[in-house]
Amino acid sequence: MAGELDNKVFRATTTAPVNIAVIKYWGKRDPSLNLPTNSSLSVTLSQKSLRTLTTASCAATYPADELILNGKPQEIQSSKRTLACLASLRAHRQAVEDADSSLPKLSTLSLRIVSENNFPTAAGLASSAAGFAALVRAVADLYQLPQSPRDLSRIARQGSGSACRSLMGGYVAWRAGELADGSDSLAEEVAPASHWPEMRALVLVVSADKKDVPSTEGMQTTVATSNLFETRAKTVVPERMAAIETAIQNRDFPAFAEITMRDSNGFHATCLDSWPPIFYMNDVSRAAVRLVHDINRAVGQTVCAYTFDAGPNAVIYYLEKDTELVAGTVKSILGASAEGWDGPFNEPLKDVPAGVALDKLDSRAIEGIKDGVSRVILTGVGEGPISVDEHLVSETGDIISQ
Amino acid sequence: MAGELDNKVFRATTTAPVNIAVIKYWGKRDPSLNLPTNSSLSVTLSQKSLRTLTTASCAATYPADELILNGKPQEIQSSKRTLACLASLRAHRQAVEDADSSLPKLSTLSLRIVSENNFPTAAGLASSAAGFAALVRAVADLYQLPQSPRDLSRIARQGSGSACRSLMGGYVAWRAGELADGSDSLAEEVAPASHWPEMRALVLVVSADKKDVPSTEGMQTTVATSNLFETRAKTVVPERMAAIETAIQNRDFPAFAEITMRDSNGFHATCLDSWPPIFYMNDVSRAAVRLVHDINRAVGQTVCAYTFDAGPNAVIYYLEKDTELVAGTVKSILGASAEGWDGPFNEPLKDVPAGVALDKLDSRAIEGIKDGVSRVILTGVGEGPISVDEHLVSETGDIISQ
Repeated sequence: MAGELDNKVFRATTTAPVNIAVIKYWGKRDPSLNLPTNSSLSVTLSQKSLRTLTTASCAATYPADELILNGKPQEIQSSKRTLACLASLRAHRQAVEDADSSLPKLSTLSLRIVSENNFPTAAGLASSAAGFAALVRAVADLYQLPQSPRDLSRIARQGSGSACRSLMGGYVAWRAGELADGSDSLAEEVAPASHWPEMRALVLVVSADKKDVPSTEGMQTTVATSNLFETRAKTVVPERMAAIETAIQNRDFPAFAEITMRDSNGFHATCLDSWPPIFYMNDVSRAAVRLVHDINRAVGQTVCAYTFDAGPNAVIYYLEKDTELVAGTVKSILGASAEGWDGPFNEPLKDVPAGVALDKLDSRAIEGIKDGVSRVILTGVGEGPISVDEHLVSETGDIISQ
Repeated sequence: MAGELDNKVFRATTTAPVNIAVIKYWGKRDPSLNLPTNSSLSVTLSQKSLRTLTTASCAATYPADELILNGKPQEIQSSKRTLACLASLRAHRQAVEDADSSLPKLSTLSLRIVSENNFPTAAGLASSAAGFAALVRAVADLYQLPQSPRDLSRIARQGSGSACRSLMGGYVAWRAGELADGSDSLAEEVAPASHWPEMRALVLVVSADKKDVPSTEGMQTTVATSNLFETRAKTVVPERMAAIETAIQNRDFPAFAEITMRDSNGFHATCLDSWPPIFYMNDVSRAAVRLVHDINRAVGQTVCAYTFDAGPNAVIYYLEKDTELVAGTVKSILGASAEGWDGPFNEPLKDVPAGVALDKLDSRAIEGIKDGVSRVILTGVGEGPISVDEHLVSETGDIISQ
């Protein structure tokens, strides 16, 4: 049996998407299991713009488990989170092997996992979510595990909380769950991308001088110190989860937008209420807030919504029909001074005029955006992980650099 | 009787101080009576740096009630708040006259009230608090009313909520009260300035491009829309009020400082949680927050505390013994680029070196302060209104311009 495995390299490769929450995950009730204090909900973003590509392979010739991210070997033994994911996946493979002794004993082999992002890790774009989702999906595919994305989300959650939401496309809820072992804390598809495919997202990448408080540390501080946090987690978010799921079912953009903006503001409010206080938004972020409110006011209805994660970047959601009003207006402000307009979603923007005349907008918002945004990412709602043949490990086990 | 009044101008002049809250007033439970949703507490600032000077006069020759602020006649009939204060004061005078018919019937005469600030009204320095406190105190003195400052605070509150706290010196609480008529919503001295005279305040005046949301409008928005506000008003603030009063009684600066900073952050958190969101702090404000935390960390104990009202200006509290560590360090950052070091409190700063070496501080904080602060105000805890003879109305009723 062992002989059969000797010269063989087993491989599986997947892509995984980034997701941007509209109801934010902030606060762990169990830090080691990554169990959250509240449910959250996100939009999975198209992999045409942002994706992680990961090959999981195993072979008897590999000396030990290895993980290579963007060309850099990682200290896998010091990453409890990675070890927890791999141990779970191996246990599931073991169960499969125990049930069918004809299967190769892949669970006994060392793994070589190679992963590449098509976007800069440091851009503040939740790369860990796509990364852990791709890792879990790729190893599950390598092991040919029968588990559903919902089941696998439990494993990915242990790598990075928000990673569980990147195992599915479209509109995805992460149910906080109640059990101490975390078995009911997992992701569920609220609606597939095809239910509301017109959802677009424009990311305004804002340069930060220095790394902010890391989110794991930040959320622990908030849970431990903010006097307002419990109200958010116990009362406000559960109401918003129900309301935004209804808005998604009804494709009701104004409702979706208001809940999204208010939840982002409420999350950042609890950061500010932490001790010491945590600030992720800066004056450029605030200019984006103003711009969105101004566009909505000028148009006379809610056509765009901002949301901010643990950093200054703005993600602006809008519907494709309002591309001119939203992305066209931002493009007319930034002009050629920002990169990213040439992405795969640029077509609808070509020659699009500003939907809203700039003199209807706050000049501070315009100046703030102009000065602080040097890069945009045009994207929209998209699919979950996709199995591909573009391997990052060769048939002989060598790493293929892209 | 009327003949006796014909040629006489009655006058009384007072100064009144600015106060800066350490537990913030934000939210009205009754907008017309200025009844707050929560109690608040402030430090009355020395009139050596900031004061309003107000002369109240009355004479049979005056054609109508007049109010002149900083040289500009005000539309008194359109200011419900001013009318409410004057009506209350007149009613009290009427009662005095009814009890003693030998007194001149001042309540029947028109008023001429002239008021001057020694600081720019638009500097975001709670000028309305000092203004209404001075107006009420001056008219009460003119009318020789027997009411205590505590009683008069009820009247000043109707002019501007926080004005009630400027009728007393030192450390002043505004009890929210519970009664619908507001009779138990008034200011009380928690401790006189002499109890803890070492308290200093350094105001960093931050230029804002444009006026922020006015505080009356802002607080209504917060009360109506913030999901976190009720927790602040009902739970968080009452606990902080008790804790900071104890800190003041014990002259416990670290406790006073932490409560002050956390309450400022919590207040701004509820602003951010409002819909649409309200931002008063900007990147310069955040640089001041960072600077204060950095100084405290470098020193190894809490020697300074920030607080922000409805605008970007930072007020930094510290004790006189730590002048070098706090004001000295700020002076070494700003150098000659900021005005205000020549104020009446500059003496302890002359030739004072930076208490904290600048290389121990976040360079972003230093740059932010340097770029955004063009003026400082050095001050400290001080006394309440003071009766003076420097009248702004002559013996013949003419306005004296300063």
